[in-house]
Amino acid sequence: MYKKEVRVIGIDDSPFDKRVKGDTLVIGTIFRGGSSLDGIVSTKVRVDGNNSTEKISAMVERSKWKPQLQCIFLDGIGFGGFNVIDINELHKKTSLPVIVVVRRMPDKDNIIKTLRKIGMEDKIRFIEEAGEVKKAGRIYIQHVGITFSRAKELLKICCTHSLIPEPIRVSHIIASGVKLGESKGRV
Amino acid sequence: MYKKEVRVIGIDDSPFDKRVKGDTLVIGTIFRGGSSLDGIVSTKVRVDGNNSTEKISAMVERSKWKPQLQCIFLDGIGFGGFNVIDINELHKKTSLPVIVVVRRMPDKDNIIKTLRKIGMEDKIRFIEEAGEVKKAGRIYIQHVGITFSRAKELLKICCTHSLIPEPIRVSHIIASGVKLGESKGRV
Repeated sequence: MYKKEVRVIGIDDSPFDKRVKGDTLVIGTIFRGGSSLDGIVSTKVRVDGNNSTEKISAMVERSKWKPQLQCIFLDGIGFGGFNVIDINELHKKTSLPVIVVVRRMPDKDNIIKTLRKIGMEDKIRFIEEAGEVKKAGRIYIQHVGITFSRAKELLKICCTHSLIPEPIRVSHIIASGVKLGESKGRV
Repeated sequence: MYKKEVRVIGIDDSPFDKRVKGDTLVIGTIFRGGSSLDGIVSTKVRVDGNNSTEKISAMVERSKWKPQLQCIFLDGIGFGGFNVIDINELHKKTSLPVIVVVRRMPDKDNIIKTLRKIGMEDKIRFIEEAGEVKKAGRIYIQHVGITFSRAKELLKICCTHSLIPEPIRVSHIIASGVKLGESKGRV
């Protein structure tokens, strides 16, 4: 059984202008379960680039909260557009369970078609290897390094103010609020 | 009596390099009392400049949460170094009570001496007119547009995870974490 104060990190990226290539801000928020914010970390990833796995695992690894962390929550697996994260590599590099959270069942075939069309076939395997998307309550998850039942246990603790884990909700608010001047979106 | 879910905003600035003139990031975090984060807003103020009152009141005014807000908490009255806020003007512009929170009794004489030394005599009146610094539990506050007893009532609701109001604690974490890559300091 996880403690109510289990330390977790939730990661989201900021909105960006698709017409401009460059870096976009990524925020990781460290929570005690679903109640108290302990700290935040930040990094930048290349829009439509290839460095999200490397940059995000380095951000988690160097954090002072690393020794306490018990799980990484990701808001989807595309950071900075098509800078797709290899969640198996992220799990291997950090030795932490990774849970990807999305609100709707992703259209995998369409994503793969798009990656082919824009010449990013090399990223299709990150999508394939991220595993089955499973319904968990009213949201959908993929999980690595943790069983489905343990993942659902963590969600129960961390989803306190909305359908999604609190550290993802707050990272989304911070990333958009810093970038746009005011936080946006359904959170 | 305030409700437990009373909407408040807590504002703090980010760390900056004193040798470099320029803007520094300011974060406002909107909370329901001391429990749930509703959103954030951000702006920039000039290090040692004169625009903090104007920039911060505009940030609060344009926010979509403005109609619900019942109080502004400030982490001290110097934003971006000696860009001192005129809290009476901030109160007037936003029609909201303003509560300044500090951890230690400020050395007013020394601050005034410093402002004279660096040729910022014009800001001394903001310090004088901010009113008496009063002990409220284990912290110190100044207040405008609200009585001392009502201010203490709000503090009781909003100081849930530390001595200071949760929206100030979280704004501090966000501002330093976005600027430095990892949040720092005693919060």
